[in-house]
Amino acid sequence: MRYILSSTAFFALVLLITPAVGGEVTPISDATAECIDCHSSIHAGIVEGWRKSRHAAVSPAQALKVTGLARKVSNPDVPEQLRNSSVGCAECHTLRPDQHADTFEHNGYQIHTVVTPDDCRTCHLQEREQFSQNKMALAEKIITGNALYAKLQAAISGTPEIKADGLIFNPPDAGTRATTCLYCHGTRVTVAGSETRETMAGKLQFPVLKGWPNQGVGRLNPDGSRGTCSACHTRHRFSIAMARKPYTCEECHVGPDVPAYKVYASSKHGNIFAAMGREWNFTPVPWTVGEDFDAPTCAACHMSLLTNTDGEMVVARSHRVNDRLAWRLFGLVYAHPQPKAADTTIIRNKEVQPLPTALDGTPAAGFLIDSAQQQARRQVMGGICRNCHDQSWVKGHFALHDNTIARSNLAVKRGTEIMQDIWRKGLAKGFPQGANPYDEYIERRWNDLWLLDANAIRFSSAMAGGGDYSVFAQGYYNLSRGITLLDDWCRQHPPADAP
Amino acid sequence: MRYILSSTAFFALVLLITPAVGGEVTPISDATAECIDCHSSIHAGIVEGWRKSRHAAVSPAQALKVTGLARKVSNPDVPEQLRNSSVGCAECHTLRPDQHADTFEHNGYQIHTVVTPDDCRTCHLQEREQFSQNKMALAEKIITGNALYAKLQAAISGTPEIKADGLIFNPPDAGTRATTCLYCHGTRVTVAGSETRETMAGKLQFPVLKGWPNQGVGRLNPDGSRGTCSACHTRHRFSIAMARKPYTCEECHVGPDVPAYKVYASSKHGNIFAAMGREWNFTPVPWTVGEDFDAPTCAACHMSLLTNTDGEMVVARSHRVNDRLAWRLFGLVYAHPQPKAADTTIIRNKEVQPLPTALDGTPAAGFLIDSAQQQARRQVMGGICRNCHDQSWVKGHFALHDNTIARSNLAVKRGTEIMQDIWRKGLAKGFPQGANPYDEYIERRWNDLWLLDANAIRFSSAMAGGGDYSVFAQGYYNLSRGITLLDDWCRQHPPADAP
Amino acid sequence: MRYILSSTAFFALVLLITPAVGGEVTPISDATAECIDCHSSIHAGIVEGWRKSRHAAVSPAQALKVTGLARKVSNPDVPEQLRNSSVGCAECHTLRPDQHADTFEHNGYQIHTVVTPDDCRTCHLQEREQFSQNKMALAEKIITGNALYAKLQAAISGTPEIKADGLIFNPPDAGTRATTCLYCHGTRVTVAGSETRETMAGKLQFPVLKGWPNQGVGRLNPDGSRGTCSACHTRHRFSIAMARKPYTCEECHVGPDVPAYKVYASSKHGNIFAAMGREWNFTPVPWTVGEDFDAPTCAACHMSLLTNTDGEMVVARSHRVNDRLAWRLFGLVYAHPQPKAADTTIIRNKEVQPLPTALDGTPAAGFLIDSAQQQARRQVMGGICRNCHDQSWVKGHFALHDNTIARSNLAVKRGTEIMQDIWRKGLAKGFPQGANPYDEYIERRWNDLWLLDANAIRFSSAMAGGGDYSVFAQGYYNLSRGITLLDDWCRQHPPADAP
Repeated sequence: MRYILSSTAFFALVLLITPAVGGEVTPISDATAECIDCHSSIHAGIVEGWRKSRHAAVSPAQALKVTGLARKVSNPDVPEQLRNSSVGCAECHTLRPDQHADTFEHNGYQIHTVVTPDDCRTCHLQEREQFSQNKMALAEKIITGNALYAKLQAAISGTPEIKADGLIFNPPDAGTRATTCLYCHGTRVTVAGSETRETMAGKLQFPVLKGWPNQGVGRLNPDGSRGTCSACHTRHRFSIAMARKPYTCEECHVGPDVPAYKVYASSKHGNIFAAMGREWNFTPVPWTVGEDFDAPTCAACHMSLLTNTDGEMVVARSHRVNDRLAWRLFGLVYAHPQPKAADTTIIRNKEVQPLPTALDGTPAAGFLIDSAQQQARRQVMGGICRNCHDQSWVKGHFALHDNTIARSNLAVKRGTEIMQDIWRKGLAKGFPQGANPYDEYIERRWNDLWLLDANAIRFSSAMAGGGDYSVFAQGYYNLSRGITLLDDWCRQHPPADAP
Repeated sequence: MRYILSSTAFFALVLLITPAVGGEVTPISDATAECIDCHSSIHAGIVEGWRKSRHAAVSPAQALKVTGLARKVSNPDVPEQLRNSSVGCAECHTLRPDQHADTFEHNGYQIHTVVTPDDCRTCHLQEREQFSQNKMALAEKIITGNALYAKLQAAISGTPEIKADGLIFNPPDAGTRATTCLYCHGTRVTVAGSETRETMAGKLQFPVLKGWPNQGVGRLNPDGSRGTCSACHTRHRFSIAMARKPYTCEECHVGPDVPAYKVYASSKHGNIFAAMGREWNFTPVPWTVGEDFDAPTCAACHMSLLTNTDGEMVVARSHRVNDRLAWRLFGLVYAHPQPKAADTTIIRNKEVQPLPTALDGTPAAGFLIDSAQQQARRQVMGGICRNCHDQSWVKGHFALHDNTIARSNLAVKRGTEIMQDIWRKGLAKGFPQGANPYDEYIERRWNDLWLLDANAIRFSSAMAGGGDYSVFAQGYYNLSRGITLLDDWCRQHPPADAP
Repeated sequence: MRYILSSTAFFALVLLITPAVGGEVTPISDATAECIDCHSSIHAGIVEGWRKSRHAAVSPAQALKVTGLARKVSNPDVPEQLRNSSVGCAECHTLRPDQHADTFEHNGYQIHTVVTPDDCRTCHLQEREQFSQNKMALAEKIITGNALYAKLQAAISGTPEIKADGLIFNPPDAGTRATTCLYCHGTRVTVAGSETRETMAGKLQFPVLKGWPNQGVGRLNPDGSRGTCSACHTRHRFSIAMARKPYTCEECHVGPDVPAYKVYASSKHGNIFAAMGREWNFTPVPWTVGEDFDAPTCAACHMSLLTNTDGEMVVARSHRVNDRLAWRLFGLVYAHPQPKAADTTIIRNKEVQPLPTALDGTPAAGFLIDSAQQQARRQVMGGICRNCHDQSWVKGHFALHDNTIARSNLAVKRGTEIMQDIWRKGLAKGFPQGANPYDEYIERRWNDLWLLDANAIRFSSAMAGGGDYSVFAQGYYNLSRGITLLDDWCRQHPPADAP
């Protein structure tokens, strides 16, 4: 016989026999109570989400009582007036009004729509500082402030036009940029004016925001700050459990350019997570290997504070994601050591292009971490691996990974040599001609090699998720086939001056 | 210390302390009891599935006692003889025997295999009526009754043959059609004869069905009705929870032509569902935003009856899915306002082709909803969004979406102009030649643009799921690369009469 | 009002009211206790994983008391010294030390790192015997011992080199092979020497393993055995629940060559699993249709011991996966009846190539099962289907599937005829020239047809998961487009001796 227990019955059951957990009640501020009065009807989803959040359940004062690794609030000096109520609507949306260009008067309060990392910093100081040194926080600048990336964007998402001398791609319009690259990289949110809207409470005035909505991780905000915490800590629940699950990373790491989620899902780690994850505990801080979870998610390897079952710290929390990364797998056009600074727009290769490697593979070494630093970061990452793998496994894994980087770079180099040959012969117009090197058909097929195929190979190897995925789904199969295409195309097009 | 509680122990525990929920016992009819006598051994999966269903737990009479938005049975006049027992095998499989060409005598009962929407209508009147006005119910007719779609089918799933003057694709055979387009669109199920089978109960006679098995949403049934409820309300549990989860929609909306599921999975909404969904309650009617669920699934935005936490209706249930849709994103060959009628075979564009737009982009306006109707539908959809997003977010979102439709249509137009140039020069045989415009290599690459790439872009934008997915996985990257391919191919093939 | 019950509170609650399940305590051996003393700190993940395992909870003696279909230990003669303690670190890692080339002295014990199927055989005799007759156990040999597969590997994952007379692909290096084909097929793990490492316990000596790490299903182990159980029964929990979920199979069956997982995920069965699977019970042996689960996972159809709700066996467990398979869907280059022997390196087609079919489609009949055997295997599989589907459904399903095999083989044949034409005209160098038939651009496009597209079609049809996935995501759309590409390419390249 089987019984299906409804959720309601379950909670009823629990109520009968469990005493209230804790006992301390966290007060809502008067201002927040006033917000909720109206908004709980208008935006039930927002208010209910927040009600389930830790922000609703714990005041900064309570959070600051926690000691040691379990503490979540890293600023010991949370302002007095914020300390003793829950972190509600008003607490965040009225912070630092003078700094926010989007501040407006709303029922007697100075409200801003766009809560920013510099607002969150009020309690989460250390995380904000780390994040500001993270490439992600500068994602909008990185893609917008690089002339070559602008050409790549035009080739991919630009507006096609057929001119007398052929097809060209004009730069994408603002709306298209917002739904393509800047969806993840972040838009520039500015105040374009104000408007009157009819509301439940009569006519009210609201700012008109440009570049909105957007939740891209490197968003440039109306207070001048860069980044958005809610890209990963989804509003209005801001759940650490959610940020620790791979679906959050999937939002921006799913395409063949950075197929981290897809590789993970088909890896042994991803298998363990998918099959057994519902038994795990995703909320504890610190997060204990083997006790809270059996296999890493993205966050476990890349960001989270981990401890072992003896309570010893395995690795410190970091919101500067490359703290644990020796290599930048993403080919530009080759994989290379991580950049030293989060602002990659300063990088110049030996050909004075804003790229971390030259077309012949030479890294822009002065802008990239050295091998000692690479070694140090690998030690940190390896220390995580060793919780579930012996040293020979870990050593072997990284040896295979280094080999993959070298070999995939080599394959891309062969393809690039063919591309250079094509340019040299004048069969396409690229770097030698001072033209967009990314926008003609055969250039697009060259892009495939380094922008899609080789990256998939490296992500797979990094996550020990190779095999079928990295060979056939994305990776080797496409990379080698793409090189034959370039070769075939080149041989079909004899140079104009050929006999 | 950790304890894993087995399901068995859990249910045992619950039994000890919870009284039976309800108290009213729903009787099984004698006829159904007789079915189960044999079939619980033969088809354990079917019978057990049903036993877990609401159909097994509640009689129509009980269901009709429910008042207001919570009522699930929309026909107040359920026939008397069906009212007081559970909705079991016999209740559905012996309904309307005279209407079913597949009715056969089986142990004294007049049984039919294929339960149809007109059977389900007995209790679910309103849903059936709405569904009959849904394009999905006519999916078989839509694809079969359009001469151009027949050509497209031949090009995609037809049988290749190499003739003296080149490669052609003959129309696909019935079996191939059943496993390709008609798998989702629905087959025509007819009775082809009868056969005797050896069974547990000796030799018995059964009808032989043609076009079977099939669960396509627009199936033409042996009773003459169109559609199948079990396409989404999977037999024999008919779980509303299941229909509300995106996996049901995934069955038919997963390929690059309509990648709704893939876009959802990599969107913020999909992230919230994947990470937090196991806490949600998928069964209540009505379904309360913020209380039962935190983020929409496909059903929430497109079909479900939603209420807010004040118990006010947010949106009415609809089984006519485009009630909330301003645009038909699916390019034929351009995105266009939703058709007025579910039967799209009546549509003619200005070139008198059975397509909702002409090749130059002009919509077949007389057959499509007007902008006032578009606006009205958008209001309904926006009303759902506003439960979790403020007005500026919603307004901004739809402005971006409209821009995406305009820009993606424009890009497809550029590609189509190149294709028309190719036809004009006689480099391929298509519309101007009265030949199949979809079946040659370069035509196939043109198909890619509007049948795959542009749709992915629009779905991503519609679900605010842009970013990495719509750029690199499917969408912009492929669309622009495809246009360069058409251009490159065209330039490589000078017209036959060129010097 | 809503209450979120933390896991901790939940377990606390359970502790208060449930007595200990069982009562018998399973002792840990002294040797294993000694392992855990150090390793629980060093490798928390490993030790905790094991602690949650059945191996930790049950001794072989306890397991052998189970009678009938529920017994999991198939060797009645488990050695006396292993019978009465849990199956811990030492029990597996010190088994058969003389057989293991990787055995080393470690704190007084003779340890080996690589636990193999011949170790697991100590308790799981029958499973190991079946598995040794499974193609998967020979996966490394199958791919390495076939000269044509070596050429295919070079074409896909080899090192490109641009020689005077054109682009070639050299065979991949060992590291690349380990992260590509052999990731799933398995490496050869050998002992390459030994090394001293600084450890918590001072300087210790460890073997250096070549071909490590690897968990490929056909790994050649240091004890000479082939295969690895942990490929599917993930260490160190060895959970049957995990092996029964489709994510395990996904690790190696996800790419477009064998897209079993992707097809499943978008099938009706996959939908039911995704939506309702959290209610199912994945641990019972035997596994009861309708009671423990509502829809099959990969394991249910292909491996698991199933019973119906009357306790009758539906199908016997098998670790020789093709016991239930009439066809080998994987085209080489055509789908064909399953090979008779697991070692497919002995197969020769009529052209004396190591392939199960000739290029004209003729099967290498002497090496493949006959139609009577196909029929017998289909009966077994159909017997599983019939638990949830009536006979006409099952019969209709397999008729469609046979049609799909015939039609997809025919389409591949048309593509292959064009490829042969290309070789005949000398436009590419393949079989007729004694050259690698897989490595030129146009050959790669021919590979796509039989190595990717046709397989996806057949997997979809086999799992009744056709529709959108098999048409647009992978399958028909690509297959027919690929044939047009071959045709177009061929017509663009007139033979050198053409006028």
